[in-house]
This record gives sequence, C-alpha cells and structure tokens, in this order.
Amino acid sequence: MTDVLALDSAAQDLLFREARTANTFTDEPVTDEQIQAIYDLVKYAPTSMNMQPLRVVLVRSAEARERLVDLMFDGNKEKTAKAPLVAILATDHEFHEELPTQFPHFPQAKDAVFGERPVREAAGSFNAALQVGYFIIGVRAAGLAAGPMTGFDAAGINKEFFSDGEHGVLAVVNIGKPGEDAWYPRSPRLAYDEVVTTV
Amino acid sequence: MTDVLALDSAAQDLLFREARTANTFTDEPVTDEQIQAIYDLVKYAPTSMNMQPLRVVLVRSAEARERLVDLMFDGNKEKTAKAPLVAILATDHEFHEELPTQFPHFPQAKDAVFGERPVREAAGSFNAALQVGYFIIGVRAAGLAAGPMTGFDAAGINKEFFSDGEHGVLAVVNIGKPGEDAWYPRSPRLAYDEVVTTV
Repeated sequence: MTDVLALDSAAQDLLFREARTANTFTDEPVTDEQIQAIYDLVKYAPTSMNMQPLRVVLVRSAEARERLVDLMFDGNKEKTAKAPLVAILATDHEFHEELPTQFPHFPQAKDAVFGERPVREAAGSFNAALQVGYFIIGVRAAGLAAGPMTGFDAAGINKEFFSDGEHGVLAVVNIGKPGEDAWYPRSPRLAYDEVVTTV
Repeated sequence: MTDVLALDSAAQDLLFREARTANTFTDEPVTDEQIQAIYDLVKYAPTSMNMQPLRVVLVRSAEARERLVDLMFDGNKEKTAKAPLVAILATDHEFHEELPTQFPHFPQAKDAVFGERPVREAAGSFNAALQVGYFIIGVRAAGLAAGPMTGFDAAGINKEFFSDGEHGVLAVVNIGKPGEDAWYPRSPRLAYDEVVTTV
C-alpha cells in the first residue's frame, strides 16, 4: 500500500513502521538543540483555533529526576530513572490568555468561548493531547526513540512540578537512542474494517 | 535547525511546515484505498497499553453528508458540504473489550483497570485524541490536506451517527486536495521558551 502515500518509504519507517516505544536507552545525551528542532517542527501541526496548550518540562537535574521517579508507577520507575532525557507533557489550563495573539482574527475567544474553566479545560486537554501525539512523532523525526508513559501519580506530578495549580500532566516521555532489548514484540493492531466504517 | 532532524526536509515540509488546514478543496475524490493506506501507516503509532479507541466513519452518501452538515456550526457547514470526503473521528468507550487480544500480556486490564466507565472514558478519550493527531499526520502523508474541525453539535453527532450510545465524537475532518484560496495566512506559534522549560 505504501505507494499510495506521498511520504517516502524511509520516512514512513522512521516515524511509524520501524519506530517503537523504547524501554531501554543508550547513554548518548539528548541535547536542547534536538528538543528545539523537534518543537520547531511540530509546532506547526494543527489544533482548534490555533490554541497551543501543551507545555513541556525537561527533567534534567538529578534532584528533579528523583522526584519524578518517585511519582511514577513501579513498572515505569527504572526506565524513567535511566533514560537520557525525560519530558513531562502537560496542559496549561490558562492557554486562553494567549489566544488574542495566537488567534488574532477572533481575539474575543479568550473570554467569550473560554472564560469558564471547565470549557477551556476540556478543549485544552483534547488539543494538548493532539500536541502530545505530534511531539511523539517529532521525537521520532529527530531519529530518537520515545517512551511515552501514562502510569504515574498525576496529582502528585501536578503538585510537584506545577505549583500554580493551572497545569495537568498528560504524559511523561522518555527520550533517547534505543538501548539493548529496547522493545517488546509489537502487539497486534485492529484491522481496517474494525476501525473504519462508511455511511 | 532542520539538519538536526533525521527526517528528510521534504517529509518535514509535507507533514508539518507546508501542510495547512484546508478550507476549500478540488473535486478530486479521496478513495478508500487512500484511507486504508493512511490507516495502515498510522495504526503503528503508540498509545497507552496499545489501546485503540479511535473509530473513523467515512461520510460518503449524500444523505449522511446532509445530516452531518446540519450538525456542524455555521462557519463549518459550507466546507463540510463541499469537501471530497469527510471523516467523523470518535472514541469507542467500549475499547477495553479488545484489550485481551490487543494487549495480550496483560489481558486482565480489560476488567481490572477499565471495568469502570469513567476510567475508560478518560483513558479512551486521551488515547483517541493521540490517534486523531496521528490520523491528521497520516492524511498529510498521503499528499492530501486535512481540515480538522471541532465546531459541531457533539451530542447531535453522537446520536445521529453512533446510536449505541458508546461513542463520543472528537473531531470531524474534511479531506481532499486543497482548492483555490484553501487557507488563511498562518497564525503565530508560541516561542520555544514559552512552551519548554527545564528543571
């Protein structure tokens, strides 16, 4: 089927077919320059009203890493402790403050649409989740393996890393070059007909 | 920065830098073969516990298109009516039924983790949102433009298109080749330092 796609086959492999969720990593560091290149690519991917609620915290200090590892579920502690870089991905529930500059042809959206916290929390979390997906693809675009995790004490991470009470963690992502025995055998995927229907 | 990335520059442009949310389309049809190629690529992107809650409804009949257009917000009606293909992307709240086959090394997850509807609705919606992001990237990988929308009567779409009460629409996506004046000027993006911090 690959010739139906415009994306070249090597890129298909890099981003989707050969890319895997890594559980072990080499010692090679992940640089700020790499993260900036990832951001400068994936920032263009679309969201509702150009909202950009995703925030990324790079956990680089040993002290911060230790605090984060403590809040991961047991099965995720070791890989979170050992990955070259770990990023906390969260929604900023106050993203609407930026709409007048980021979505300039409808500046009223800030208050008229997103004045109420529950409305903007729902829209922000959905759009930040889209951005988490884009970020994972971006990590792979940088030739790195991502190890996204959702097994953690979310309230604890929000408290430890976002003391303003205005952020909600969505995922924690280990980032690096895959190490030895980096992944399990790939699990199955649903067949096309199980996912796509026509009306 | 592009030379920091492993992904070739043409693929970066195709998926992120030159790809834009299209508001008009040519008449060229979008085939089932193209949608299958998109699915067969993006199905490999990662989710929590390999859950696959995303469902895609291709709205091909004139009758179904009309029902959908009626449920779109005014600003989205015309483009939804005219796009060569429109897809409804939704979460299947009963995705946990598939976990024993899709995540075979922890078949107990179906009931032990996701027995309660609110738990699986939250996990399913987050992971389906990741899959919406992957799907949009996949549409672009097929050389097509996506026009994702969230402005619609969600309860109405759920009732009209998912009569089982077990699905929640997340996005409606117009798909096709971009037409004349297909997009607005690009809105700004947040700077790296506004999004990424280090601890």
